[in-house]
Amino acid sequence: MIYDVIIVGAGPAGITSAIYTARNNLNTLVLGGNIGGLLFNKAVNIENYPGFPSISGIELAFKFKEHLETLENTLIKEEVVLNILQQNNLFKVKTEKNEFQGKTVIVTAGTKLRALNVKGEKEFLGKGVGYCPVCDGPFFKGKDVAIIGGGNAAFEAGIFLSSIAKSIFILERGNSFLADKKNQEKVKEFENIRTYTNAELLEIKGNDFVSSIKWKHRSHTLETRLQAVFIQIGCVPETSFVQNLVDLNQKGEIIVNEDMQTKTKGLFAGGDVTNSKVKQIICAASSGAIAGLSAYNYLLNYEN
Amino acid sequence: MIYDVIIVGAGPAGITSAIYTARNNLNTLVLGGNIGGLLFNKAVNIENYPGFPSISGIELAFKFKEHLETLENTLIKEEVVLNILQQNNLFKVKTEKNEFQGKTVIVTAGTKLRALNVKGEKEFLGKGVGYCPVCDGPFFKGKDVAIIGGGNAAFEAGIFLSSIAKSIFILERGNSFLADKKNQEKVKEFENIRTYTNAELLEIKGNDFVSSIKWKHRSHTLETRLQAVFIQIGCVPETSFVQNLVDLNQKGEIIVNEDMQTKTKGLFAGGDVTNSKVKQIICAASSGAIAGLSAYNYLLNYEN
Repeated sequence: MIYDVIIVGAGPAGITSAIYTARNNLNTLVLGGNIGGLLFNKAVNIENYPGFPSISGIELAFKFKEHLETLENTLIKEEVVLNILQQNNLFKVKTEKNEFQGKTVIVTAGTKLRALNVKGEKEFLGKGVGYCPVCDGPFFKGKDVAIIGGGNAAFEAGIFLSSIAKSIFILERGNSFLADKKNQEKVKEFENIRTYTNAELLEIKGNDFVSSIKWKHRSHTLETRLQAVFIQIGCVPETSFVQNLVDLNQKGEIIVNEDMQTKTKGLFAGGDVTNSKVKQIICAASSGAIAGLSAYNYLLNYEN
Repeated sequence: MIYDVIIVGAGPAGITSAIYTARNNLNTLVLGGNIGGLLFNKAVNIENYPGFPSISGIELAFKFKEHLETLENTLIKEEVVLNILQQNNLFKVKTEKNEFQGKTVIVTAGTKLRALNVKGEKEFLGKGVGYCPVCDGPFFKGKDVAIIGGGNAAFEAGIFLSSIAKSIFILERGNSFLADKKNQEKVKEFENIRTYTNAELLEIKGNDFVSSIKWKHRSHTLETRLQAVFIQIGCVPETSFVQNLVDLNQKGEIIVNEDMQTKTKGLFAGGDVTNSKVKQIICAASSGAIAGLSAYNYLLNYEN
C-alpha cells in the first residue's frame, strides 16, 4: 500500500492538512503519538480559536478528530515516527511497529516541552517535577508549587493551579514577563499566586519527592519549601526523525517556503515545527491547509 | 474618542483580528457592511474549517460574531467605509454617517464578486441576473438557470441550485474547470446539471425579466431559453477606500509583508484583500490573527 500523503503529527496543523488532502481524494495516513498534539497540555481554556469563545484543549482536540473522522480516504494511527527516508520517488516512514510508504510527507510534529537542565530536575521527574500542569497538577491539591517561566504557558499554568494548590510561585529568570497582558492581569486576581522576575532556579531538592527549591532572587539566594515544580520555559521542535531531508534554522525549526515546501521535493511541513513567526493554533491550522494543498498540487504532476 | 485599532471588514480575517486585539486590551472598533463577510454567499456548507465538520456560512458567521461579542473593548458597527486618511500619527476612517479616529487600522475588507460586463447584465440585475445564488436562488424554483464560471463558487452554486431549479447549465469560457475534484464529481451526481467548457456567454436577453441567453459553444452560437443567470467568475479585492496608503499587486490585492504590514506604518491588512496565495477561510483567519498581533506590537512603541 502506497499512501498519497503521510502526515506526521496530529495536532491542529496535521489534522487540517489531512482535512485538505482527504477532501481532495488523496489517500491520507495520519501518524501521531496523541491526537490533538500540544492542545492536550493547555492549562486554561482556549479563547482565541475563532468560532469557539472558550473551549478546553482536550475538547478542541476532540472536535478536530471528529472532523477528520467524517472524511473518507483517511486513516489515523497513534504511532510515533522514528525515521523518514527517501528512496527513488517514495518516502519510507518508520514507526516502532511499522514501515509505511508515501508519495508525499507532511511533517506537523510540533514541539516538545523544553527541559531546564537544573540539578534535581531529572532525578525528581514524576516525583514532583513535571512539564504538564494539566496532567499532573491535580496531584498537588493543597500543596505549595513553583512554576518556572514567564510566558503564557507559565501564567496559564498558574491560573489553572490556583484552584488546586495552596500557594504558587511563578519564577522568571529575565527582567520581565513575556505573557500576554490579559494573562498577567488575570494572575493578579489570585491571592495565592506570587510572581517574581530576576528569579533563577538553582536546584530542586528532596528525598523521595521534591521538598524544596534553592533559587536566586536578584542577589539573594533563598531556599523555599514546596512539593512541586512545573517547568514551562518553552518548546523544542520535534525534528529528530527527519533531519537529513530538511534545513533547520537556529531555533531548530524546519525551514519552509510560502507553500510549506521543505528543501526536499514532496516533503512539506506545517505548524509549530516550522520557522513560522507566529505560533498560534489558528496559524498552525492555516499552514496545515497550505501544506495539504501544496501536496495535492505536487501530486498532480507526480511520476514514480 | 481615539480607538487603538479600527478594523475595516467583518469577515473571518477581521473578526479574528478583533479577537486578538481585544484580548490584548486594545480598544477595538470593527466596521463592516455585513458581519461574516463573504461567508454569507457560500452556496454549500463549509466543510474545511477545522472543528466544524459541516456548517453553513451563515452559521459560521454567527459563531464568529458570538465569539467576538464575548470580549470587552470591542464595538461592532455595520457601516461601510468610504475613505481612510492618515493625519499626523492617526488614521481617520470615514463611513457614510461617521468619522472615526484610530491609532492603527487593519484592512480586512475582502472581495466583492466580479461582474462579467456582458450585454444585458446590468439591465437585468435583480430581474434574473444575480451574483448570490444563496440569496436569490429560491426565487427560481422549477425554472431553468445558467451559472457562468467554472471554479468552486460556480460548482457549489450548481449543487445548491440543483434541488431548486429544474435545469442548470454551468458555462465556463476556458478549456477546463478550476473547481476542486470533489465539487466536479458531486455535480456529476445531479441529472439536472449540465456543464460546458469553451462556452462563452454573449448576451442576456428578455423583456421585463431574463428570458434567454445567447452563448457560443466552441464554434456554434446558440440561444437558450431560461429565467436566471448567476455570475460566479471570481472576486475583486475591496480596496477603493485605501488606495493611496497601500501598494497593490497586478490583481489589485494589497501587498503585505509576513507581519501583515502594508507600506504605511500602523496600517495592516489581512485575509482575501491581501496578496496571500491561498484564499481559504482558515488562512484568512490566521492572517487576521497575525495582523492583530502586529498592531499590538506596533502600539507598544506608539507615540502621538
